[in-house]
Amino acid sequence: MTDSRLQIAVVQCELRASRDENVSRIETLVREAANRGARIVLTPELFEGPYFPQVKDEAAFDLAAPVEGHPTIQRMQRLAKEVGVVLPISFFEEADGARYNSLVVVDADGSQLGVYRKSHIPDGPGYEEKFYFRAGNTGFRVWNTKHGRLGVGVCWDQWFPEAARAMALLGAELLLYPTAIGTEPATPNEDSRDPWRRVMLGHAVANAMPVAAANRIGVEDALTFYGSSFISDHRGEVVAELGRNEEGIAETTFDREALRKYRNNWQFLRDRRPDLYGVLTRNEPVE
Amino acid sequence: MTDSRLQIAVVQCELRASRDENVSRIETLVREAANRGARIVLTPELFEGPYFPQVKDEAAFDLAAPVEGHPTIQRMQRLAKEVGVVLPISFFEEADGARYNSLVVVDADGSQLGVYRKSHIPDGPGYEEKFYFRAGNTGFRVWNTKHGRLGVGVCWDQWFPEAARAMALLGAELLLYPTAIGTEPATPNEDSRDPWRRVMLGHAVANAMPVAAANRIGVEDALTFYGSSFISDHRGEVVAELGRNEEGIAETTFDREALRKYRNNWQFLRDRRPDLYGVLTRNEPVE
Repeated sequence: MTDSRLQIAVVQCELRASRDENVSRIETLVREAANRGARIVLTPELFEGPYFPQVKDEAAFDLAAPVEGHPTIQRMQRLAKEVGVVLPISFFEEADGARYNSLVVVDADGSQLGVYRKSHIPDGPGYEEKFYFRAGNTGFRVWNTKHGRLGVGVCWDQWFPEAARAMALLGAELLLYPTAIGTEPATPNEDSRDPWRRVMLGHAVANAMPVAAANRIGVEDALTFYGSSFISDHRGEVVAELGRNEEGIAETTFDREALRKYRNNWQFLRDRRPDLYGVLTRNEPVE
Repeated sequence: MTDSRLQIAVVQCELRASRDENVSRIETLVREAANRGARIVLTPELFEGPYFPQVKDEAAFDLAAPVEGHPTIQRMQRLAKEVGVVLPISFFEEADGARYNSLVVVDADGSQLGVYRKSHIPDGPGYEEKFYFRAGNTGFRVWNTKHGRLGVGVCWDQWFPEAARAMALLGAELLLYPTAIGTEPATPNEDSRDPWRRVMLGHAVANAMPVAAANRIGVEDALTFYGSSFISDHRGEVVAELGRNEEGIAETTFDREALRKYRNNWQFLRDRRPDLYGVLTRNEPVE
């Protein structure tokens, strides 16, 4: 990998239509992002259809499929190869006699680099993910793609500094989060858009690296997804973004050497104290 | 403890004068904060004098003193008792044949609750702390004071999400950071003020609790301290703040029951995955 720059785009759109229509819409946006020069293109969580975990419905289990022979992933592999972009693809995986909220990273030559399974699973009104998804068992992973070393979490993972830090320690130079988030049916006056961004801007600063998130837009039954997809620089500054209702692409470019120098200037990882962090990994009751 | 509210103030001032003048100035501001209703008052890091770690100078070792019989701490204990406020006091501690960047928490009755020693020690031009301070050996602590359960880190600790999370896991409902930060002599064009705030706003969101920091102002040799002390709410929104050159107090009040309900609504700690966080505590080389 010899890119001197990280060329990143996030895409945002409605995903209320059929699988074919949604995947075609995503494909169109990925092509446009590639035309604009992006080499890493982030798409929203579970973009094949409406956000089915909004309610508990066993019938939706049939939407899950194994990674092997998955038609949408294969289509994205062909697309990645054709236009030469890295594509982290969120999908509903059937495996281990259960289902996972998973992600496959497709490199710019169309090859699959492997699967990450969402580690943190939310559960609340409108986001009934514990009904559908077994908690991920892959652990955090970092992907050495043709255009950058990516750490990729999935949606709820983005609220956990542990996930971001783990990916930084594993060598990520960029953190990405496919997302599906909007209104909270149980607390309609709670607009989580700003906290949602702030927690990821915190990851950017704490790990001295860019962070990007791609969300969907549109109304799906009781949920209104708020878009606001963004790319933050390594100082937690939003440098590219989309609105709450905007379909499209936001892109930016980072100088990898400048990012490396910035990380060296701050040296956060030099000063960590793993000897004092035992409470973070303790599952037993804390005294 | 039966307070229904957290009544917090941060104080900010220059600290370039003699110890007596600086401590008197801090005392005046603490009294004013108490008059305004604050019950927890946060003061800047190492407020007894100029920020001596700006350069390496063994003569400054003589500024260190044991916690027992420490005149400034004793004065702050009398003040805390008189005006009825909790005071986390940053001081230069002599102990273990070495020196620490330490903090003693003084409860509102004037009693000492114990010492925390700064865990993360910076080192770079203008911030030569590894020359002065042994890395803290107390681990993170949470203080069950008469007016709230405080997690208190010291300055550089504020850049480490691990510290914030550890204090949240130990039961904190509020995070506080005495601070001394300003310009970077080696990178004069780098203004860290916004990243400095953002990383702590990230802690507020990730741990669903208020966060406050108190910084100094003024020019001390090669450093210009940028103040900007603030209090963030549990959503990462700055609700009280001071400017880059402003001497004074910023205060706010939180409803503890509302904070508890907000934490319950988000349930971040329910969904943590300590089984996947091993990399965070590993000191051996990462494969």
